Amino acid sequence: MTKKIQNPLLVVGTVAIDSVETPFGKRDECFGGSASYFSYSASFFTPVRLVAVVGNDFPKKYRAVLEERNINLDGLETNASGKTFRWKGRYNFDLNNAETLETHLNVLLDFSPEVGSNGKLDYLFLANFDPALQMKVLSQVARPRLKLVALDTMNFWIQNKLTELKAVIRHVDLVVLNDGEARELTGENNLIKAARKIRDMGPDIIVIKKGEHGVLLFFRDQFFALPAFPLESVFDPTGAGDTFAGGMMGYISRAKAITFETLKKAVAYGSIMASFTVEEFSLDRLRKLKSTEIEERIKEFRALTQF
Amino acid sequence: MTKKIQNPLLVVGTVAIDSVETPFGKRDECFGGSASYFSYSASFFTPVRLVAVVGNDFPKKYRAVLEERNINLDGLETNASGKTFRWKGRYNFDLNNAETLETHLNVLLDFSPEVGSNGKLDYLFLANFDPALQMKVLSQVARPRLKLVALDTMNFWIQNKLTELKAVIRHVDLVVLNDGEARELTGENNLIKAARKIRDMGPDIIVIKKGEHGVLLFFRDQFFALPAFPLESVFDPTGAGDTFAGGMMGYISRAKAITFETLKKAVAYGSIMASFTVEEFSLDRLRKLKSTEIEERIKEFRALTQF
Repeated sequence: MTKKIQNPLLVVGTVAIDSVETPFGKRDECFGGSASYFSYSASFFTPVRLVAVVGNDFPKKYRAVLEERNINLDGLETNASGKTFRWKGRYNFDLNNAETLETHLNVLLDFSPEVGSNGKLDYLFLANFDPALQMKVLSQVARPRLKLVALDTMNFWIQNKLTELKAVIRHVDLVVLNDGEARELTGENNLIKAARKIRDMGPDIIVIKKGEHGVLLFFRDQFFALPAFPLESVFDPTGAGDTFAGGMMGYISRAKAITFETLKKAVAYGSIMASFTVEEFSLDRLRKLKSTEIEERIKEFRALTQF
Repeated sequence: MTKKIQNPLLVVGTVAIDSVETPFGKRDECFGGSASYFSYSASFFTPVRLVAVVGNDFPKKYRAVLEERNINLDGLETNASGKTFRWKGRYNFDLNNAETLETHLNVLLDFSPEVGSNGKLDYLFLANFDPALQMKVLSQVARPRLKLVALDTMNFWIQNKLTELKAVIRHVDLVVLNDGEARELTGENNLIKAARKIRDMGPDIIVIKKGEHGVLLFFRDQFFALPAFPLESVFDPTGAGDTFAGGMMGYISRAKAITFETLKKAVAYGSIMASFTVEEFSLDRLRKLKSTEIEERIKEFRALTQF
């Protein structure tokens, strides 16, 4: 089966139904998933297409959320014999770490992503997923024709599928992960050394997210550091990482060339997008977001980081 | 007893003999103390004077270290009947927290700082010390004539002398402390909220140090965030905080006016000074430091934080 690819940025990830508890409230069965947050965020910068799977219980209203940003959903498969992937988690007061209460993979168990082979595809984001499946996606695309392939991962894969993960990392241009994952993947406590070790695995661009402490960007021998946009109240951190990646990849996709300057701005835009997401549950804040608000906050961000 | 004050920046703190163990080596009986690091660092920007006490065993060679930067030592008292304050500590691989192995207060036990009342004094830094003594120092100076009084503290005083500490904080313009201390002092996990609470206690300027994650500056309603200067190897973090404060206060002291722009640059210079200190044991790196190296690193710092 091949599908015509119309959009230069493609994300392969999850569409989920989340139940989230934070110190400030709780929400059952809300819209979530890495591909949802990523594509919604990226859509502010560039046309985007997603590949994911949902089950027979996936609400039409959640599909409508993605449609309101004209996200191409041709690759959103429905598995009629199963239920949508569900995640249930809780955050404590520090809001840095989610405690997973329940994970029901459901239709993800049989998911075999099909990217399609025709049409234009320049940028590919492999959201956090089984590295064997990430590799399967990569095998479906004409790698040399792509401008940039990026990958996200998590400690679970580092601990359980390290060989497969390293194999995919070898083939991507950009790796985005958090500080704990970077340390675990490399055995290096110092993040600069950790980034160099990841670069030795293949990718030219390493983005290390540090939550409330901001983000580090490594591009070949160059280095860039950005604090987080200061927020007085983080309401729900769910999806912050995927929203960050969506903003970053969206910005890269619409740029003329992938230079260090482009990448610096891309991580700044990614940070700003994430700073909106965490202000409310689910995609609620992003759904109200206006492009002018993004530009205002970027301006503010620049002012509070320049000396 | 009154002494003539010749120098616009005064630090009241400790001069110590440290024994330090890090994953990279160990050093016994080396030169340390908050006033030593502070004044050495500040001396790159402005003339500085220190008030502290040492014992009968204080090596001449350590006094000579401070003299090589023309630090005014008129206020360095020698208590002939006691030994110099000693601290012994160890750092683990993460280098973020010192484990104190031994503390011998020695001559500090009877120390009663005398600032002197004549001459020019514009800027005062109360290094981490018993808040009752910090208050005693404050009572010796004509507060309204000073341009800026700053204070450092630590969790020990927050836990054991909170009333006294809050009393001093009420009288200072600037408080510098680390993130854990800011949280502990205010009971606020969010650092922006914590800073606001400290501001409600009196000071207009709050500087929150986050170690490898950089520094936050709050000036009235304005906010500034800076990542740490990236270092691949931190050799010995001892004195980083005091060196930071020295660079910051030194820069402020030589500035024409205390504006938000001045303060931003001051925390940047403070960060850079600290980034040198941690490269070697004790004051070894600072002793080799050239002003041109400071300017080069500031330039580099600017490049890697601007987008």
